[in-house]
Amino acid sequence: MKKLFAEFFGTYWLVFGGCGSAIFAAGYPELGIGFAGVALAFGLTVVAMAYAVGHISGGHFNPAVSFGLWAGGKFPTKDLIPYIIAQCIGAIAAAGTLYTIASGKAGFVIDNTKAGAFASNGFGAFSPDGYSLQAAFIAEFVLTLFFILIILGATDKFANSNFCGIAIGLTLTVIHLVSIPITNTSVNPARSLSQAVFTLGEPLSQVWLFWAAPILGAIAAGFIYKNLLKQEGEPEKIVL
Amino acid sequence: MKKLFAEFFGTYWLVFGGCGSAIFAAGYPELGIGFAGVALAFGLTVVAMAYAVGHISGGHFNPAVSFGLWAGGKFPTKDLIPYIIAQCIGAIAAAGTLYTIASGKAGFVIDNTKAGAFASNGFGAFSPDGYSLQAAFIAEFVLTLFFILIILGATDKFANSNFCGIAIGLTLTVIHLVSIPITNTSVNPARSLSQAVFTLGEPLSQVWLFWAAPILGAIAAGFIYKNLLKQEGEPEKIVL
Amino acid sequence: MKKLFAEFFGTYWLVFGGCGSAIFAAGYPELGIGFAGVALAFGLTVVAMAYAVGHISGGHFNPAVSFGLWAGGKFPTKDLIPYIIAQCIGAIAAAGTLYTIASGKAGFVIDNTKAGAFASNGFGAFSPDGYSLQAAFIAEFVLTLFFILIILGATDKFANSNFCGIAIGLTLTVIHLVSIPITNTSVNPARSLSQAVFTLGEPLSQVWLFWAAPILGAIAAGFIYKNLLKQEGEPEKIVL
Amino acid sequence: MKKLFAEFFGTYWLVFGGCGSAIFAAGYPELGIGFAGVALAFGLTVVAMAYAVGHISGGHFNPAVSFGLWAGGKFPTKDLIPYIIAQCIGAIAAAGTLYTIASGKAGFVIDNTKAGAFASNGFGAFSPDGYSLQAAFIAEFVLTLFFILIILGATDKFANSNFCGIAIGLTLTVIHLVSIPITNTSVNPARSLSQAVFTLGEPLSQVWLFWAAPILGAIAAGFIYKNLLKQEGEPEKIVL
Repeated sequence: MKKLFAEFFGTYWLVFGGCGSAIFAAGYPELGIGFAGVALAFGLTVVAMAYAVGHISGGHFNPAVSFGLWAGGKFPTKDLIPYIIAQCIGAIAAAGTLYTIASGKAGFVIDNTKAGAFASNGFGAFSPDGYSLQAAFIAEFVLTLFFILIILGATDKFANSNFCGIAIGLTLTVIHLVSIPITNTSVNPARSLSQAVFTLGEPLSQVWLFWAAPILGAIAAGFIYKNLLKQEGEPEKIVL
Repeated sequence: MKKLFAEFFGTYWLVFGGCGSAIFAAGYPELGIGFAGVALAFGLTVVAMAYAVGHISGGHFNPAVSFGLWAGGKFPTKDLIPYIIAQCIGAIAAAGTLYTIASGKAGFVIDNTKAGAFASNGFGAFSPDGYSLQAAFIAEFVLTLFFILIILGATDKFANSNFCGIAIGLTLTVIHLVSIPITNTSVNPARSLSQAVFTLGEPLSQVWLFWAAPILGAIAAGFIYKNLLKQEGEPEKIVL
Repeated sequence: MKKLFAEFFGTYWLVFGGCGSAIFAAGYPELGIGFAGVALAFGLTVVAMAYAVGHISGGHFNPAVSFGLWAGGKFPTKDLIPYIIAQCIGAIAAAGTLYTIASGKAGFVIDNTKAGAFASNGFGAFSPDGYSLQAAFIAEFVLTLFFILIILGATDKFANSNFCGIAIGLTLTVIHLVSIPITNTSVNPARSLSQAVFTLGEPLSQVWLFWAAPILGAIAAGFIYKNLLKQEGEPEKIVL
Repeated sequence: MKKLFAEFFGTYWLVFGGCGSAIFAAGYPELGIGFAGVALAFGLTVVAMAYAVGHISGGHFNPAVSFGLWAGGKFPTKDLIPYIIAQCIGAIAAAGTLYTIASGKAGFVIDNTKAGAFASNGFGAFSPDGYSLQAAFIAEFVLTLFFILIILGATDKFANSNFCGIAIGLTLTVIHLVSIPITNTSVNPARSLSQAVFTLGEPLSQVWLFWAAPILGAIAAGFIYKNLLKQEGEPEKIVL
């Protein structure tokens, strides 16, 4: 149960920090943090939560990560659904809090005819820079694939896994630095669901892609890691 | 006594670095650091001081952190008031130095009818982007709650606490990336007090919220951590 | 073979993350990540992959790094060509993926008469800010020289090599913060080749400089490190 | 002798990376890295060199740091002058290389009637934002004081000194985030000297302040650390 609370709070923070920075601060006139600030916010939520609750739940905060670790043989099948439910509830709770705070500014309304409304993900007319469904799918697939490869590699028993929180979190920053213009960046089905639930309209009907592409990319990563990269045997000594 | 000096110097640096970056560099034409630069400055003051004096005082630099650790059962009641006094004196000393330096530019004056003057915190008409008292309270409460959850988690005996300075400091960066437009970001009553003392006017009369919301959020975090996340027993081996 | 896969995936990610951020996100109106965001993306791909697959292949992801470690006596001659081939294939595969995604935006075309097209490197008329061949050569030579000095130093048996991924990756960030206006920043022949292959025209005919200058700089670094900086003997105790 | 080479190369990199980013990339139209990018570049040169050559020379790269460690009782008097000479030669060599590269752009000239020309430091009419001599002195004094306090604290035998490179380097980032508009940020006499030597004119005649204020701040820090913060005794166990 503590594991599920850890996933709840971790995913809440990922969505609150990442999507919150996009909603409140990205486009502030002149002083706004832009896409780079949002990329940093997403990544640093994961760095922090990896060190804060990673020892409790493993620190997934993302259904695609749970699927990827499962495909890589590092996460039991029976925990998959409970983890994903906890992640989705955490994400939706965070989005609800963001909605409540955002409503405290006069004139706030979610314009769900606009790409990226309430930090939602999208493609085609709902891609911030007008990328097609196909381009969005490839981007989300490839980015999640590498995200999971890095997670599996950085937590390998041969790796110096003390640093995995930094390596993994800052990879989420790289992912956002590349792809906010393409899909507003998901690689995380829970984060896509939570924002779509409050945005409704077309963004909600596009949310399937942000479940399918990241999860398929994650499973591909598990397969690649096991077959092409994973080393056999035991480390000669503990890596300090 | 060394503990109180550590808190004095640590909080001085947090306010000097964080509020100083906002006052001198955020709005510089074209080359200014913007909100993202301020967010980085605040976070990195904590990263640095956590490793520099954390071994002396625990590295709070913030009355809400002291309250949160106290609520989480990690800080003795008798030290609460001395720590908070040292933090407030450090913050006010830093703000005084910032005032002296700022006065070295011709025409400097604090316009306390403007949101965010001298890096002060505020809500309503004194929120940089016009957020209500209620929105400001929720934002400060939630952000401090997660700040303290991360502090309690990252310093847990089961966690790899070597990295806690990075996790905690960079969480302060995330907090600022989200909420500068909402309240100019406090989560730290000492930092709010020091800037309000030099700003006077309405910002000083709003400073109560930046004591109440962060401290309540911190106490809630202590309660949540103890009851929902904290693991019993001893770690099997020292985490390297 | 696992080593070559590690170099393939590592270099793929360096090019996909670094060049991808430049292609998709650097110049996005108002919210774009600019050169600083690109610099961060390049550096963080290396931070991540150093911790993810560094234990497999050593984590070069760059022919100049392989040459530099070889010159510094830390990499066997027989592995030089296979590593470089794996790196170039990884880079070209990443550039191909970037091309496919970029093509998903209506009106996409690579204008190879423009400096920096498709994140290509160049000098003279193809330098983003109009720097001469000579200036470009010196910049790439010096920057790669220091990159390799830092790699050799941070992985020395006397150094605290746990942090080498951070030191090395963030040095690539510094390199980009300095030199994007000069050459669009290479210091990595594989990264230059892959973007030139898809850009064709003048950028492809300039690619020789981005093999010659980084590799010469890297070999100079190996020589300097061995003769001026490398300490003899054994560390008294393991550095934790 | 290896120590002096380490200081030479370390200071070269600090000046080449930090001042180079300011000269080439800060003001690039629309995509430039601004003051925040320059702040990051300065800090990350120190992070990298601390891990790359810190084990050889201690990693000062700055006469004020050498004075501060000397005042704190951690650096022998006999090494003070040689270190400072190596640092100044390294800084001037870097500035010379920057000058050579910068000359490779048509129309390059150093306009030494303008604040911040060739990344030089200054006050009054040569302060980027017009701060007085007094404000500049206080800023440089206080910033260097805290820089050295953090260095002494983070390298203390009671501290987790593995992280000192990160804590110290990123403090240099904070220092720049605050004070580029005030003095173009020195806290490092060697860095001020090297840029002034190539700028000549008024910036060279102001360089005294950027020796006096940082060195006095550093000595004050040594005194404060020894008397108010330094703990007696031995750590109970090695901090991992």
